[in-house]
Amino acid sequence: MDDTRISLAHGNGGRFMRELIESVFVRHLGESTIDVQADAVPIDLDGGEVMITTDGFTVQPLEFPGGDIGSLAIHGTTNDLAVAGARPLYLTLNAFIEEGFEVEQLDRIVASLAQTARDVGVTVSAGDTKVVRNGEGGGLYLATTGVGVRLPGTQPSLTRISDGDVLIVSGTIGDHGTAVMLAREAFGLRGDVISDAASVIPFTEALLGLDGLRFMRDPTRGGLASVAHEILRATGFGVRLEPTVPVREPVQAVCDMLGYDPYYLACEGRVVAIVAREQADEAVAAWQAIEGGGDAARIGRIDGASQRVILETSLGGERFLEELEDDPLPRIC
Amino acid sequence: MDDTRISLAHGNGGRFMRELIESVFVRHLGESTIDVQADAVPIDLDGGEVMITTDGFTVQPLEFPGGDIGSLAIHGTTNDLAVAGARPLYLTLNAFIEEGFEVEQLDRIVASLAQTARDVGVTVSAGDTKVVRNGEGGGLYLATTGVGVRLPGTQPSLTRISDGDVLIVSGTIGDHGTAVMLAREAFGLRGDVISDAASVIPFTEALLGLDGLRFMRDPTRGGLASVAHEILRATGFGVRLEPTVPVREPVQAVCDMLGYDPYYLACEGRVVAIVAREQADEAVAAWQAIEGGGDAARIGRIDGASQRVILETSLGGERFLEELEDDPLPRIC
Repeated sequence: MDDTRISLAHGNGGRFMRELIESVFVRHLGESTIDVQADAVPIDLDGGEVMITTDGFTVQPLEFPGGDIGSLAIHGTTNDLAVAGARPLYLTLNAFIEEGFEVEQLDRIVASLAQTARDVGVTVSAGDTKVVRNGEGGGLYLATTGVGVRLPGTQPSLTRISDGDVLIVSGTIGDHGTAVMLAREAFGLRGDVISDAASVIPFTEALLGLDGLRFMRDPTRGGLASVAHEILRATGFGVRLEPTVPVREPVQAVCDMLGYDPYYLACEGRVVAIVAREQADEAVAAWQAIEGGGDAARIGRIDGASQRVILETSLGGERFLEELEDDPLPRIC
Repeated sequence: MDDTRISLAHGNGGRFMRELIESVFVRHLGESTIDVQADAVPIDLDGGEVMITTDGFTVQPLEFPGGDIGSLAIHGTTNDLAVAGARPLYLTLNAFIEEGFEVEQLDRIVASLAQTARDVGVTVSAGDTKVVRNGEGGGLYLATTGVGVRLPGTQPSLTRISDGDVLIVSGTIGDHGTAVMLAREAFGLRGDVISDAASVIPFTEALLGLDGLRFMRDPTRGGLASVAHEILRATGFGVRLEPTVPVREPVQAVCDMLGYDPYYLACEGRVVAIVAREQADEAVAAWQAIEGGGDAARIGRIDGASQRVILETSLGGERFLEELEDDPLPRIC
């Protein structure tokens, strides 16, 4: 791989993206001021517990079963605040629009974004638009920054994770990645797979009262496997994923057919939480009681004895899940 | 003009951009929640006086005499907070990088961005990167959101403007637009024109103690003429620009040669302020005492009797400055 030029793999949520961020962005901006491991970071304003996060969106196609780039921008940004234990309040919106883009489609997307913001309860308080020449953009890119306040309760953090803690997930994985892939039609396939894009706020707020809550993350780009690798890197503890990880049958079928692995595919409405072993059942039960949480499940555990991400198969075997390298699906979010 | 598709003129800071924002973004997001007339807007967090603003950057070339897209992103965003009477504290950064982009150039630009952030005194607290396919991006686009706190003193606002108030500017106009245009080399011209991109914080803070301060704006996309039109639209008062508007000789020469009008070209380190007539001399003197403020000048007045933007010429004539329509220079900021 030519390491003097940016490749698609620099954007996939895996190893090359991490290395680019560390070698260029963190090096110049300073580890002390930009926390690349956090979904949202506190900013010090008059002693308030204000959190901030930011996200870019380039999903292609711009509209897909279960959402569009507008609803995705709201969910993606507010979910990052939610998993950090904050309630989202305000958003800013940047739109990069390519010359020739249909105004009607722009209108539909902004309407969807606005409706989603109302549903989630956030106010879009500032915005900016830029138009680039035909051929210099991919139709429409959005960038959103979210501001929220930290909620009372346990403050989830990678530093709280201990050996023996349990991983739980709020629903099936890989739906968003598969739905977007199918919507591209490049494969001649059309399934009944719908993106899981949704707010995770009910799920994250349900756990803030648990003193055994360690950490939460929404497994977007790079999927569940990349969340597991992030935990491994931050804590030095291995992660064992059990055969209980919920995957919808049509998602698994599409992945089998096309050679994708659902563990690396993006979700946009799921949470992975790490909780103390003795509170795992309680946490899963709380999630299952929430609308859309019927597939919530215990899916693994922190394994201090290994320094790998290990997938246990239903037949009793094991395989390593490596850190993502090549980009399986560019412009997925 | 085909009004079903986005054109470059939808991004130029003039009439079509305003109409697009009103007809699509404001219509869906609600006039009450997104203030398109403000450079930065207050957000309500624990009663604090927190201000927020956001900006996208697409300048081409990415590096130009006097700056680059990285320093421009910091200045553009922090200047928007400054003219709203706030001190910038935190920034978030989104980068949209095109596949094939040179890592070395990315590194230079991020280093420049980081240095500029340190110089201005803001912390980059969150970031995100996305990579798009070759041909789906223009090399590098940035989006930055700035958060700051309102400073004590007069709160500048369009609603404070009265008939007879005076317009002042902190320096020469059109330098940024002309420097970027020349850096494209498409015209076979190379001048000694350098972008004015810089922080305006010393200039804005110098006026907050004046009770006659009405309003401040940094004349970026669309230039001084667009600021004047914004005042006209918001207040119903005409704006008369006097022959004292400072324009550097090489900027004027390039504009004359190529048929551009410096009144419509972007500045990235200037402030236009509206002040009460009796405090105008004091305000200009304060600016002239600041480093880089030597060209600060009184440049016009609010004229309630007219509903036009009028340019008075040095020979005693007058001409109307219309609202910008076609985009003279796409990707200027």
